[in-house]
Amino acid sequence: MEARGISALIITDANDMNYVTGYNALSHYVPQAVVITQSDIFFILRSMDRYAAVLSCWLEDEQIIGYSDASMLSDDDTPWHFIARKLADLDVSQSTVGFDISGKFITASEWQVITTLLPQAKLVDSTLLVTQVRVIKSPQELDYMRKSARISEAAISAAIEMAAPGVRECDLAGEVSKHLISGTAEAAGTLAFPFILSSGEGIKTAHMMWTDRRLEDGDSINLEVAGRHNWYACPMSRSIQLGTPSSSMLKLEEATIAGMEAAFASVKPGVLCEDVERAFRAETSKFGFEKESRIGYTVGLGWTPPSWIEMAASLAPGDVTELKPGMTFHLMLGMWFQDVGMVLSETFVVNEDGCEVFGSLPRQLIRK
Amino acid sequence: MEARGISALIITDANDMNYVTGYNALSHYVPQAVVITQSDIFFILRSMDRYAAVLSCWLEDEQIIGYSDASMLSDDDTPWHFIARKLADLDVSQSTVGFDISGKFITASEWQVITTLLPQAKLVDSTLLVTQVRVIKSPQELDYMRKSARISEAAISAAIEMAAPGVRECDLAGEVSKHLISGTAEAAGTLAFPFILSSGEGIKTAHMMWTDRRLEDGDSINLEVAGRHNWYACPMSRSIQLGTPSSSMLKLEEATIAGMEAAFASVKPGVLCEDVERAFRAETSKFGFEKESRIGYTVGLGWTPPSWIEMAASLAPGDVTELKPGMTFHLMLGMWFQDVGMVLSETFVVNEDGCEVFGSLPRQLIRK
Repeated sequence: MEARGISALIITDANDMNYVTGYNALSHYVPQAVVITQSDIFFILRSMDRYAAVLSCWLEDEQIIGYSDASMLSDDDTPWHFIARKLADLDVSQSTVGFDISGKFITASEWQVITTLLPQAKLVDSTLLVTQVRVIKSPQELDYMRKSARISEAAISAAIEMAAPGVRECDLAGEVSKHLISGTAEAAGTLAFPFILSSGEGIKTAHMMWTDRRLEDGDSINLEVAGRHNWYACPMSRSIQLGTPSSSMLKLEEATIAGMEAAFASVKPGVLCEDVERAFRAETSKFGFEKESRIGYTVGLGWTPPSWIEMAASLAPGDVTELKPGMTFHLMLGMWFQDVGMVLSETFVVNEDGCEVFGSLPRQLIRK
Repeated sequence: MEARGISALIITDANDMNYVTGYNALSHYVPQAVVITQSDIFFILRSMDRYAAVLSCWLEDEQIIGYSDASMLSDDDTPWHFIARKLADLDVSQSTVGFDISGKFITASEWQVITTLLPQAKLVDSTLLVTQVRVIKSPQELDYMRKSARISEAAISAAIEMAAPGVRECDLAGEVSKHLISGTAEAAGTLAFPFILSSGEGIKTAHMMWTDRRLEDGDSINLEVAGRHNWYACPMSRSIQLGTPSSSMLKLEEATIAGMEAAFASVKPGVLCEDVERAFRAETSKFGFEKESRIGYTVGLGWTPPSWIEMAASLAPGDVTELKPGMTFHLMLGMWFQDVGMVLSETFVVNEDGCEVFGSLPRQLIRK
């Protein structure tokens, strides 16, 4: 905040809010904001969620302020009017105020209201300010992610166990979700959303969800999950093959494994995000596959749908973010092509020597 | 659109998009838009999701247009630049163009870009245009919601069966999610998110999620779920009591049941939303309980997190929306107080005579 000259930071991103205060109730579908100044921090949310903040945040009772339900229906006394008055009380309504305006938590029409409520403030976009701090994980956060890896593995292993011709996609998905949420004996899971389970034509594209389709011999199943302990996600993907894989699938598997190995081999401090993608591309192009989309992104604290992505960096051409120890990425090899598709992904942390991959399942197309 | 003088409608709300096109892949975390004019409809989305649209939409192949991953990293050739060029091609870039700017799908900073890209258009807020059409359900949609009711019941029944002292909240939640996703033999479920399962202090507030807390004798558990078939949600809530309820819980149960009966008895075409809330309030206040938050809202197609709410109307003071046959509501009696809390909720459709309640579980605190 100091470096950017921000006097008051208004956090509306639910992940950043969790990172800063501990708040973890599911109420971000209505307006709420953590306000930070040089000397103060407080949390304004709907009255009916105030006690959830008391239970889950480290803030003191008087730092947690509820607005009434009536303001949700009001045009001229909305929660944002309440927040604007609070900023005036704190003498920062004429200063530089940062908002997450590139995030999904302030709507465009709310932003129009906010700009009229703070005519004397200099409003700046502070969307990634907290997220960029989050990118380097502490040992405690890495511990959460390792526990989440065990949850992801339990969910994928259950799917491998259950997958068979005749099983409905939705029943397989139900079993997966049970493990994602129950977690392990050591660590409770949290969300089972989003996750992707598709078969049939759905394996050729990224984000199809399950239906009541029954699996058939020769099918493969794409499964992308993220165990989450204390909201820290460890995404992981595998494809499961029922019966004999096609020759195009075998070729794709070989390319994907080679690409993954090349990507991991390239990771070390000082390397750029785009270098990792280049290493992958150099290998997979030998097999004739050109993946158009990025091959990964920063991950970690990700409890807010629709995803677990930390928007700080991508493993993609043109991203010159430098890898540093403690940064965590989801290397997501979603290999979706016109005639064949498979997924293989792992989450890793950059360390002094290279990287630690959290997952320990076989890195291949899983035969069943 | 005609009534509002809108020449081009840009739909970014994923629920509205599903309603209009059938699209149901989980890709709305990146920009995408359905564009409708007097004579055209097309869908612009990320290239890697294009095939998901081919599989799930009724649109023709040429109406589905992918943008490249490169534009996600670009500042001066973003997906919105692509859409703006398309509007110019269609000769509507100088007309009235409607955007969902009060929704969560266009960020405030994207909106700033859009306004500069369409300097000659008259931009209007069309956020609830499609949602308001969605409020009256067709017989087919009501059939989906009845199937979803069976899924909600299966999930709640499984929780009742499993709930016991010593069971972890997360294991109970895992079992619930399995049923929400698997669905029934007749109908596949879709999402198991969001749902709420809390015990201990968490029952006194609305949106706490499960942890690894172990249930104890005397606990009650608040459970709010929504089975969803074909993305049509039927929310339903119950509290489950382990052992003997406290006297304050018994009093709250009595008030809540009386309030629910009064609310249902008040429902018929022509009645206003606020009248239903008033009927509830008149009854529960006799018991000394004053619920501050609204008692319900329109529901139906709700596959996009964070919720299943259709933002058209609330059962709340000041909402003068008139009830009409085919409208569906979640009557959500979340009774959260300082010393005690419980939930009881049902989803209903207004019909000619009154209403049909979809759920058939006992409407009370469930003793275990």
